[in-house]
Amino acid sequence: MDKLFVIKIGGNVIDNEENLSSFLQSFASIQSNKILVHGGGKIATKIGEQLGIKSNYINGRRITDDDTIDLVTMVYGGLVNKKIVAHLQAKSCNSIGLTGADANIIPATKRPVKEVDFGWVGDVYNDQLKIDNVQLFLESGITPVFAPLTHDGNGHILNTNADTIASSLAIALSKDYDVRLIYCFEKKGVLENVNDENSVIRNINKEKYRQLLQEQKLFEGIIPKIDNAFAAIDAGVKEVLIGDAKDLLKNTTDETEGTLIN
Amino acid sequence: MDKLFVIKIGGNVIDNEENLSSFLQSFASIQSNKILVHGGGKIATKIGEQLGIKSNYINGRRITDDDTIDLVTMVYGGLVNKKIVAHLQAKSCNSIGLTGADANIIPATKRPVKEVDFGWVGDVYNDQLKIDNVQLFLESGITPVFAPLTHDGNGHILNTNADTIASSLAIALSKDYDVRLIYCFEKKGVLENVNDENSVIRNINKEKYRQLLQEQKLFEGIIPKIDNAFAAIDAGVKEVLIGDAKDLLKNTTDETEGTLIN
Repeated sequence: MDKLFVIKIGGNVIDNEENLSSFLQSFASIQSNKILVHGGGKIATKIGEQLGIKSNYINGRRITDDDTIDLVTMVYGGLVNKKIVAHLQAKSCNSIGLTGADANIIPATKRPVKEVDFGWVGDVYNDQLKIDNVQLFLESGITPVFAPLTHDGNGHILNTNADTIASSLAIALSKDYDVRLIYCFEKKGVLENVNDENSVIRNINKEKYRQLLQEQKLFEGIIPKIDNAFAAIDAGVKEVLIGDAKDLLKNTTDETEGTLIN
Repeated sequence: MDKLFVIKIGGNVIDNEENLSSFLQSFASIQSNKILVHGGGKIATKIGEQLGIKSNYINGRRITDDDTIDLVTMVYGGLVNKKIVAHLQAKSCNSIGLTGADANIIPATKRPVKEVDFGWVGDVYNDQLKIDNVQLFLESGITPVFAPLTHDGNGHILNTNADTIASSLAIALSKDYDVRLIYCFEKKGVLENVNDENSVIRNINKEKYRQLLQEQKLFEGIIPKIDNAFAAIDAGVKEVLIGDAKDLLKNTTDETEGTLIN
């Protein structure tokens, strides 16, 4: 099977013009099939404040009301997404900017209301992705760039976690490609000692993970990321890499930086 | 050759939710190949005012400065474009939202500075459209929806007239399709008497046009539209229709409302 990289970047890359430009240079030079998924970054909050749209949080989680979904549709689906596409074109990477609504690639449903109504937030229908349309682009040499938005099939755009979009795409495409899913974040990888950037654990398999959990060595915030990584692997993704976007080029060869989970 | 409709809508459709919904219903039900090109509407001006972005005009023409290109990239490429796509998906029309930067479909250049620097405004390279990528979508049953944005190949998005985008696409696609280019506007067609909506001229060919110009019957504002229509026809487009979006369904059969130019 052909190799495919599904790479997710978040605020620490998007919010800094220099980081973004250097990341996109590395990304554009990847010769294999590749997909980019970006989060939103701080720009939506900034523009939202200027527009007088208040961020509402319940239990620390943001609520996507009518104004907020319009805001993120503009900022994630328009400003951030199309800027990335224009930059990639300038680096001779023929890309196409997409949301999950485009070509109906990522159908989702508004998150059911239990204790909290999160508003226009999407839960992806993992078994309904129109993945043949993604393959159509890849086979035509066009690199998809996804904003963290999906749709409900009833005319509404839904705000959707970028990590989820990346793993949903990676899983659906793992039937036809050897998928390496790469989560770029602000650290060099999973650290044995959270205060020491040089303590990156190079490889975590399930046995090693059990051992690390028993030893209670892991920083708490990293545990859901590792759980998600194993969920992706159990669903067919070949390997998941967690690390710093700056190490990206090394992360697309057999030599890797960061933490490889498999 | 297969039929293809390239349909352009402007503010009078986009700015009114009811008009837009009814238009999209008609559009979705067109069985032939189709492409939608939308303008911006008043929403960009409104959001721009809220963000404190001033509209600058020189000789009555808007200048697209740094803030304004970000604004229209957000609003046209994100908010308006993705809302249309989500609505079309709900009407079972599998669509994809695009700018000219996506899949490098419409390369352009920043308008050269002569007396006036219009800022980030694009002039389309008509001979460089990557039209095979548009055909890829059409052949896969995916309907392209274009925002009025192109790119310069150097990483910049460019604000570009929606009428121009529609005619550039129509011309480039006329090699492979029988193209009917439809400009929706606020009147029922070209009027013999600008004050009488019932005086629509059903058909204008070059001879008839010469005659109308001699008789000085035409409303001045319509003349550039008719000139553009004949330019498209001279470049290969089969026919151009000018009329009201409400008559759209009739405008996709042999019976037409509006003014057919050929």
